Amino acid sequence: VFQLAKSSPKPLGDQLVEQMSSLIESGRLPAGSRLPSVRDLAGRTGVSAYTVTTAFERLLAKGLIESRPGSGHFVASRRALAGSSEVELGLPPSADPALGLARSALDRRNISLPAGSGVLPPAWFNDAIPTSIVSRVCADWAALTMPSPAEGDLILRELVVERLHLRGVPASANNIIMTAGASQAFDLIARTLLCPGDTVLVDDPGYSVLLTRLNAAHVQLVPVPKITEGSALDVLEDMARLHRPRFFFTQTLLHNPTGVTASVANIHGILQLADKYNFLIAEDHAYGDFGSPHLASIAQLDELRRVIYIGSFSKVLCPGMRIGFLAAPSACISPLVDAKVLAVLHGSTLDELVLRELLASGKYRKHLQRLRERVAKARHLANTALRAAGLHPNGVSSDSPFIWARVPDGIDNSRLVAEARERGILLAHGSVFSLTNRSSPYLRFNVAYASDSRLIDFLTARVQVNA
Amino acid sequence: VFQLAKSSPKPLGDQLVEQMSSLIESGRLPAGSRLPSVRDLAGRTGVSAYTVTTAFERLLAKGLIESRPGSGHFVASRRALAGSSEVELGLPPSADPALGLARSALDRRNISLPAGSGVLPPAWFNDAIPTSIVSRVCADWAALTMPSPAEGDLILRELVVERLHLRGVPASANNIIMTAGASQAFDLIARTLLCPGDTVLVDDPGYSVLLTRLNAAHVQLVPVPKITEGSALDVLEDMARLHRPRFFFTQTLLHNPTGVTASVANIHGILQLADKYNFLIAEDHAYGDFGSPHLASIAQLDELRRVIYIGSFSKVLCPGMRIGFLAAPSACISPLVDAKVLAVLHGSTLDELVLRELLASGKYRKHLQRLRERVAKARHLANTALRAAGLHPNGVSSDSPFIWARVPDGIDNSRLVAEARERGILLAHGSVFSLTNRSSPYLRFNVAYASDSRLIDFLTARVQVNA
Repeated sequence: VFQLAKSSPKPLGDQLVEQMSSLIESGRLPAGSRLPSVRDLAGRTGVSAYTVTTAFERLLAKGLIESRPGSGHFVASRRALAGSSEVELGLPPSADPALGLARSALDRRNISLPAGSGVLPPAWFNDAIPTSIVSRVCADWAALTMPSPAEGDLILRELVVERLHLRGVPASANNIIMTAGASQAFDLIARTLLCPGDTVLVDDPGYSVLLTRLNAAHVQLVPVPKITEGSALDVLEDMARLHRPRFFFTQTLLHNPTGVTASVANIHGILQLADKYNFLIAEDHAYGDFGSPHLASIAQLDELRRVIYIGSFSKVLCPGMRIGFLAAPSACISPLVDAKVLAVLHGSTLDELVLRELLASGKYRKHLQRLRERVAKARHLANTALRAAGLHPNGVSSDSPFIWARVPDGIDNSRLVAEARERGILLAHGSVFSLTNRSSPYLRFNVAYASDSRLIDFLTARVQVNA
Repeated sequence: VFQLAKSSPKPLGDQLVEQMSSLIESGRLPAGSRLPSVRDLAGRTGVSAYTVTTAFERLLAKGLIESRPGSGHFVASRRALAGSSEVELGLPPSADPALGLARSALDRRNISLPAGSGVLPPAWFNDAIPTSIVSRVCADWAALTMPSPAEGDLILRELVVERLHLRGVPASANNIIMTAGASQAFDLIARTLLCPGDTVLVDDPGYSVLLTRLNAAHVQLVPVPKITEGSALDVLEDMARLHRPRFFFTQTLLHNPTGVTASVANIHGILQLADKYNFLIAEDHAYGDFGSPHLASIAQLDELRRVIYIGSFSKVLCPGMRIGFLAAPSACISPLVDAKVLAVLHGSTLDELVLRELLASGKYRKHLQRLRERVAKARHLANTALRAAGLHPNGVSSDSPFIWARVPDGIDNSRLVAEARERGILLAHGSVFSLTNRSSPYLRFNVAYASDSRLIDFLTARVQVNA
């Protein structure tokens, strides 16, 4: 009954699995039917016994057949599957705008152009994880199958320390906890070091998912405006004096969404105020590796006394890897590790070992070089194209993968975002990044998509006509 | 200056990196020194230019040298590294006993025999992740480098659904969220569906890290004794009537630590009480795949109306993979996905795609078969050895990787655990698994280590002498 085409590009095993699945699912092979033996089927179809055995294993895994020891394979008796057409529609969306944007950017159903996404395109990471590296990791199965320590693999943490030393941040492996990206670092800090009712200062605009996470901790959020030099120190001092905050969460390097990098004087000013008003700082360098390694950080000036430094490899190495770290004063580490055990027990050994090989071999460094060149080129094109379409990019000179651009007066930004979405274009509305500005005239663009003609044509038609 | 031994088993590139690192770190090649060109060094050492280039990349990654475009490579000017001898001592331990046990079992510093660990030995997972599977995943870099959706890869969730259908649990992919093991499922439920002050029923004894996680949610925990048939229904009803709980967290299958599997009648009784007193159930099947797929679950009887079903691949596939899932009523899914975005943004694409291949190819199923045989053999040996040493295993017939055994009267269990630890033997004190019993006479043993002569000799000497 099987028609296997040896000349087809589809492997014979795949053909066999498909045809048997279809016979079973259509009911032509009813539940309880005995299947021919491996030897018999191999003889009849002309494929090897190995191919037949592998096909049987795949059918067993799918639950379509069952094996009765000593008597062979039979078509399984199987409950009717629940109707699955609804699956095509996906999950209902989030009620929170920041989480809605994040989930849309990750999922991409019905999105043809993710122009507002935080994620660079897959093709930009084609060299990120060479098969040779992963094969080397898998060859050492004894290491691969062990759980990593809750704080992360020691050798990986030492490699992270070497990178921090290059940035002038003094740390030992005992200051480092590996995390599932910067997000988990924020989450662990919020769980461990914040209490309901605390006041927390945040960048405005700032990273949207962080704002939602902090809101969920029932703290009072107080915005500190981001300006060209970094943080607005006059407002920071007023707010610190008024509210006696516990923490300032800030992104000093390649700030998301504005691209601003704080000057050394601004960083010094922030740290002086932290000392004067005795607040802690969570310094988010998730985009740090896109910039020059010589840029200053609060952690460098402060030497990890009142600063927790947060880094990520997910943005630069590849978005499919969820891996980052925090570097914190020794006194904070053990409670933060406890919080990680409660949240996930420990991290993915596979991700940690792959990253370790990439860092140690220098492959990460080479990938980063190429990625930075790609961002620089795309940023130039995107700035030009957005200006030509009538938008006003903020003009910050930056290595950031984002452009923060204002729509002209008279344009309804929310309507623009909704109309774009109807055309499959995901835009990121500025208000998602703000505590205060519910009708922001800004959009955040991903440089990789922001000179695409589908976007530029849409913007030109909507913005120039209405302006 | 370089002495490369071509006959050495150590690759020439490794030799070159080591010797250059040592020259730089010892100061014999001072900061700012210019290195020979790739071609020059290749000529002098007789290795290929490719090997020299790779060695330079590794030294660049370590920050030992720097590259100045157009003029070559130089020894980097480098801050003195912070003293790292303290790193050898590791992090300070957790103040919480359950987290202390979990972190010790993961870390294993100073532990020669992890007899109380929840993790089976690496050698039992040597066939878990074939290199061929991982190579296939890496070949499709476009898929690998994309972030997975927050709820998890759709094809993987459909494979999970197929497995649930085999267990008679009706679900569609829209009911499934992939998680970093069962731990993250507990964490998401606690964040989303529990409020401070809620009453939550738990198994007693029960999974230690879960008890600590629930305590952190500021809920009132009420213990329900685990008996041979499952949960003590009379106590469950009393507690449900008295406390009007919001949730019952229970492990019906291969319960950790006791090994008990609830009877179908007991499961039916639990569900009747849940209906009568209107509480929800979190059914933890983290060890479910160790048992027969034909065992009943609350989720099967209830059809995902008031039950959230929690599964894990970490325990069975390999502890280095942090991957599990929850299956929940549709109404709960979107808030749970939001909570996952806030916690980690999304899961590891690498882990998800590797698991997808393992499930679809049938490799998971074959590994599981071998693992179950190993557990059964080890369990038999361990029960016999522990009895001979004077302990009292609870005698439950089970496929659990754990044995729950009582020390004889007159033995100080805490002292026994402390003395074992001095000898490098990690034991799991029963009180860690209990809300109520602070001086439990029980120990939880990992079957893989529990017939080891180092343990049995130690127990025999301590227990039989004192008994």
